[in-house]
Amino acid sequence: MKVDKIWFNCRVATLANPAEPLAVTDNAAIAMRDGKIVALDSSERLLAAYQAERVVDLQGRLVTPGLIDCHTHLVYAGNRAHEFELRLAGANYADIANAGGGIASTLKATRAASADELLQQSLPRLDRLLAEGVTTVEVKSGYGQSLESELKQLEVARELSSHRLVSISPTLLAAHVVPPEYKADPEGYVSFVCDELIPAAIAAGKVDAIDGFCEHIAFTPPQIARIFSSAKQRGIAVKLHAAQLSNDGGVQVAAQYRALSADHLEYADDAAVAAMAASGTVAVLLPGAFYCLREQQRPPVALLRQYGVPIAVATDANPGTSPLTSPQLAMHFACTLFGLTVAEAFSGMTIHAAKALGQATEIGSLEVGKYCDLAIWDAERPAEIIYQMGFNPLYRRVWRGHEST
Amino acid sequence: MKVDKIWFNCRVATLANPAEPLAVTDNAAIAMRDGKIVALDSSERLLAAYQAERVVDLQGRLVTPGLIDCHTHLVYAGNRAHEFELRLAGANYADIANAGGGIASTLKATRAASADELLQQSLPRLDRLLAEGVTTVEVKSGYGQSLESELKQLEVARELSSHRLVSISPTLLAAHVVPPEYKADPEGYVSFVCDELIPAAIAAGKVDAIDGFCEHIAFTPPQIARIFSSAKQRGIAVKLHAAQLSNDGGVQVAAQYRALSADHLEYADDAAVAAMAASGTVAVLLPGAFYCLREQQRPPVALLRQYGVPIAVATDANPGTSPLTSPQLAMHFACTLFGLTVAEAFSGMTIHAAKALGQATEIGSLEVGKYCDLAIWDAERPAEIIYQMGFNPLYRRVWRGHEST
Ligand SMILES: [Zn+2]
Ligand SMILES: [Zn+2]
Repeated sequence: MKVDKIWFNCRVATLANPAEPLAVTDNAAIAMRDGKIVALDSSERLLAAYQAERVVDLQGRLVTPGLIDCHTHLVYAGNRAHEFELRLAGANYADIANAGGGIASTLKATRAASADELLQQSLPRLDRLLAEGVTTVEVKSGYGQSLESELKQLEVARELSSHRLVSISPTLLAAHVVPPEYKADPEGYVSFVCDELIPAAIAAGKVDAIDGFCEHIAFTPPQIARIFSSAKQRGIAVKLHAAQLSNDGGVQVAAQYRALSADHLEYADDAAVAAMAASGTVAVLLPGAFYCLREQQRPPVALLRQYGVPIAVATDANPGTSPLTSPQLAMHFACTLFGLTVAEAFSGMTIHAAKALGQATEIGSLEVGKYCDLAIWDAERPAEIIYQMGFNPLYRRVWRGHEST
Repeated sequence: MKVDKIWFNCRVATLANPAEPLAVTDNAAIAMRDGKIVALDSSERLLAAYQAERVVDLQGRLVTPGLIDCHTHLVYAGNRAHEFELRLAGANYADIANAGGGIASTLKATRAASADELLQQSLPRLDRLLAEGVTTVEVKSGYGQSLESELKQLEVARELSSHRLVSISPTLLAAHVVPPEYKADPEGYVSFVCDELIPAAIAAGKVDAIDGFCEHIAFTPPQIARIFSSAKQRGIAVKLHAAQLSNDGGVQVAAQYRALSADHLEYADDAAVAAMAASGTVAVLLPGAFYCLREQQRPPVALLRQYGVPIAVATDANPGTSPLTSPQLAMHFACTLFGLTVAEAFSGMTIHAAKALGQATEIGSLEVGKYCDLAIWDAERPAEIIYQMGFNPLYRRVWRGHEST
């Protein structure tokens, strides 16, 4: 049988078996046709059964699914290094706001930037993710909060995938903060989101989900419910930043609308986790923000395990609370700060991240019929990919069968 | 006047002014001859006053001193990824020891490795440091603890600098752990260190300092005093792993022998810090180990500031408690976990790290007469070098006037 390419003589962790996600099969081979995996077998059997134009000897290297970063705010303008500096020097939030810092500064810079400027500033951050084996990236809007600037962010997010070998999953984070224009009228902003922004974003191109930030400093559970209702009426999936700083019932709203994921979750309690389990909502843990904010309250990992809620891990790459573009470090943080096992952390950036994006039938594990998205590592075992900080063992990345060099 | 090379049109943070270490001078230029800085001035004045064979327009880039990693255990064999995995899966120290883990496993692998194997395994780690702008690295022995294997580690440490453009400062960490051969007789091991290992290491080649680990699981203050006395008799400087897990008086022994540095210091109290201030001992903070060990007790940063003790920051790169080869992340940890300011963290890997190595007259800041060790960054301000995790803004590295590409 004819295929496009075969990688053989590799050691494969497929992430396909939940009971043993990191089990490694020696002397394995993978056959690809039209960007998809058509066979996974021993090198001998696969090379005997298939003919390929290109055959690559991986010399015993480790192959895993390409990593999936299922929660990022990668597209923005400017940076907040000065704010980081001021805060460490003792400035409080008022000082920083007076110095033009905080999320308002990112909003201002992102609104002011042209689409091309946004693209040029975002590509180096994307390149860092790709350099560590990422093949799919979720990218949120949310630094515009006006019709024009939210559509611009989404357009740039989609545009990323025409410049690099990567899948982008664009999310409209319409309700991130109440923008300055609506300071006195948050309900008016929610109406604008429901009646204008969501329809316009859907009309303008691919939007995989609608996201919001449910928190006392952002939007209330009833406001989020209005937005989710508008999204669901239009057949779009939802997800939520929930229970990061307090337990305000946001997780239950997410569950009620069968959200793909609820993200952060530091303050989620038993009832919240039970609701997620019932609705099939994935828990996305974001340890970079936990670390940067020096939080003490850890997400309820034991409860998530007990209820069988799939746990994903993401960088939350953003200029304020998680200027992190290293998936390997996100996994290290998840292990060290939240106590995830290596298998949980790695599942969290592969198969469970795919679930969080509603794409688990297409990506996230190495199985016949799924896209051929691979990360090839100079490592003996998957633990080595996480264990060393600041050391990147990636050898090659394969996106839909295309090998980057 | 003739010089070898001029870099102009750059923005320079010299780290030479303790009152404002990160002050940036615009449109600056640096002239180099025979590997040393011979002039620092505005681009106009310097280009008018000096003639150079090579003149480099840095197009407004930021130049800082090359980074100095003043505490590493970079030369070792094997890795401890499996132990990391086991521990996260719930294994305790006994389980890990039974599975062949812990420092004993590194000791075994390092003893068994040839000098060339050790070199080949250590170079990729060194390369990671260099990729982030490091020009000087301290490297400790301590995974041999026998005459032959300690000398082998020191030889490999020195050898690193013949393969890369970098200065290596080799340290004999003779008293790291009590080796298996001396389990029943730690005093006998200390005698061996004093009477055989130290003299042999000095005879074999460059050793900049003698180090030890003072802790209830390692060596007592009186044992460390014996070793330091032997070192000082032979005119070699000392330094100490001290007060990491308890306050056992080790810092005072370090101060008594005018140690270059006392390192870790989580449990150092007022008396310990006062002793360091009196002896001119630098505090080397190692936040990577603090993070990996999930410690709660922070080093006494306020006391160090109050007593005017210079604070250095290092990776502590080692296979067990700090598998960290990112100086940028070490600085981020120091800021976020220990509350250092950006200026303190950056001074900690430049001028104060030079002090910790006893080399502050030669490296650590950009001043006429010092070595021309530069890090050139695609960054507006030094804070950007620390603020982003997993993003490396290094443009070029210059070691003693030689520019890496
Ligand atoms: Zn977010
Ligand atoms: Zn150490």
